[in-house]
Amino acid sequence: MTLWDKRPDMIVHKADPYNAEPPPSGLDGQELTPVASFYSRNHGEIPTLDPDEWRLQVGGLVDSPLELSLDQLRDRYEAKSLVATLQCAGNRRAGLVEVRDIPGEDPWGVGATSTAEWAGVSLADVLASAGARSDAAHVAFEAADVSALAEPTQPYGGSIPAHKARSPEVLLAWGMNGEPLTRVHGAPLRVVVPGYIGARSVKWVQRITARAQPSDNYFQATAYRLLPAEFNPATAGPGDGLSLASIALNAAILRPLDNQQVPQGAIRVSGYALAGDDRAVARLDVSVDAGRSWRQAALAPALHPWSWQQWHIDVDLRPGPAEIVARAWDSTGAAQPESAGPLWNPKGYVNNSWARVRVTVAH
Amino acid sequence: MTLWDKRPDMIVHKADPYNAEPPPSGLDGQELTPVASFYSRNHGEIPTLDPDEWRLQVGGLVDSPLELSLDQLRDRYEAKSLVATLQCAGNRRAGLVEVRDIPGEDPWGVGATSTAEWAGVSLADVLASAGARSDAAHVAFEAADVSALAEPTQPYGGSIPAHKARSPEVLLAWGMNGEPLTRVHGAPLRVVVPGYIGARSVKWVQRITARAQPSDNYFQATAYRLLPAEFNPATAGPGDGLSLASIALNAAILRPLDNQQVPQGAIRVSGYALAGDDRAVARLDVSVDAGRSWRQAALAPALHPWSWQQWHIDVDLRPGPAEIVARAWDSTGAAQPESAGPLWNPKGYVNNSWARVRVTVAH
Repeated sequence: MTLWDKRPDMIVHKADPYNAEPPPSGLDGQELTPVASFYSRNHGEIPTLDPDEWRLQVGGLVDSPLELSLDQLRDRYEAKSLVATLQCAGNRRAGLVEVRDIPGEDPWGVGATSTAEWAGVSLADVLASAGARSDAAHVAFEAADVSALAEPTQPYGGSIPAHKARSPEVLLAWGMNGEPLTRVHGAPLRVVVPGYIGARSVKWVQRITARAQPSDNYFQATAYRLLPAEFNPATAGPGDGLSLASIALNAAILRPLDNQQVPQGAIRVSGYALAGDDRAVARLDVSVDAGRSWRQAALAPALHPWSWQQWHIDVDLRPGPAEIVARAWDSTGAAQPESAGPLWNPKGYVNNSWARVRVTVAH
Repeated sequence: MTLWDKRPDMIVHKADPYNAEPPPSGLDGQELTPVASFYSRNHGEIPTLDPDEWRLQVGGLVDSPLELSLDQLRDRYEAKSLVATLQCAGNRRAGLVEVRDIPGEDPWGVGATSTAEWAGVSLADVLASAGARSDAAHVAFEAADVSALAEPTQPYGGSIPAHKARSPEVLLAWGMNGEPLTRVHGAPLRVVVPGYIGARSVKWVQRITARAQPSDNYFQATAYRLLPAEFNPATAGPGDGLSLASIALNAAILRPLDNQQVPQGAIRVSGYALAGDDRAVARLDVSVDAGRSWRQAALAPALHPWSWQQWHIDVDLRPGPAEIVARAWDSTGAAQPESAGPLWNPKGYVNNSWARVRVTVAH
């Protein structure tokens, strides 16, 4: 995996297409995730695009279709940057796989969530300059990578509703953590849709289309949908289930690790939490007795409106096995659900049950 | 309770201050709740205000403080109307009381949620005409009713953040379901804050104050806060816990009734669901075997952006005891939590666990 200059300890779920997440230590205690540790979710071969040849097409329900080079994007629009957390809809799928097998989907852990500073221009500014029409209720993205996982084989794509596309936080980004975007993360240009599942932050974007309806791309119409438990994902078609967009309240324990041996006495428990959309994480509780009693962790405010919240607490553990549990409450007073069982769904999305790690405390 | 011209079957939790909810049949199958059935949550004696004498003061961080009569409100601002569901933060507290007693708080059922068409003017328009300043981060309301439940005794009040106050859906309302607002529902004028807990929809409003900070009224600073389970509510002070604002995903079964005898065979199960804030209810599942298997109910779209969603399903029941369970999923793919136990909190707010009724099916 040195091809991508990743940390040597990345957990590679699949080499082709390349799908990898950092171990929890790659995220713990850092507001920004290093580029080399940032999770990578791909559906086809990583494309190699010549930035000089690359063009962005903006069309559909617009008065003035555009074809823009990278230089034109930089020259014509105000540069913007923001910190945003991206989260794959399959984050924590491993916890659902424990409930019931999910064939054909990778068992992502808590590392399919990462945070970076993105630099580029506002999608809203580009749409405005193209004269996006009022009947454009959705904005679709099409990428350069082609996925044989789709039916039929097609370029990766997706869409977001116009109200989100017009929000200033949605970027067309060429920079990540102060460096040019790397090839594996979407160079020369990717979409960044803060608050939405990572699937909508389309990498290697080449075409933006204002539409009356959501994209009919496979990855919008058929994939990334939460199906009822009794559905057969092999026969589910376009429009079945719930199309995922805004992300749900969630939290993870990054330290200690699951199945870790820890010393007796005081240890630090830490992790991330995020509320998604325009909500905030208001409280994070930790239990060291599998949920019988709870204490509040120190919950850092989000350093940026679209980034996760870090938390930590020091706890005392007695010798023997222990289950450490964390649960977040959002600004509406809603808590994460207790267990993954009722959340199981055929494609394994949105596991936002209480975070749990089992440790053995040394005598 | 004929004083308020309520349905004779209203469930009166307290006569003074008057606190009552309709039975589930008062809500079932109706997009709009009749005024006589609309829940009534009060903290002091219902005031009697002479509409000719009544004035609304608008002040604080504004360039031009206003004093407005009802006629001036009607004459100077565009009339607006919308349908909105209001929900008390204590809705379904009865389910938390089953977990552990909550002294001093009424055991509201599923009827502390009602929907009406409200007529009035936009708060945003009034604030704009007063020249609300950019440092006004909150907008506070003060009412005419005085509550001895507060410490110290004070008029009822609360506040909302400026971004919400500037949203067009927040009304200063004088009409309800096509009739003039009744005394018990806040005449001559009340605030209606769609998507927020009912406590912020202040009745008998007399004073609106643009502020840098949230209101320090008892009902904002101390009451209507979700406290950690281990907190003693008697000693909790201003700022403790999580201040409730936007409401959480929730659902209720309105039919059949809990503990009802039902005939064998096909029966209809129906209820309401609401997602709160800018989310939607995307799916509603019903189980007649206490959650082991589920079917999707027919979920009506919200008829109005700020109103609940009605649902129904016909199920077959076998003779004997049965537990019917309903759970909603929102547009982020988040589901309601399974049980009320982990949600228990000292003041009994935000019980959004799965809805459950136990019935006996006749042989």
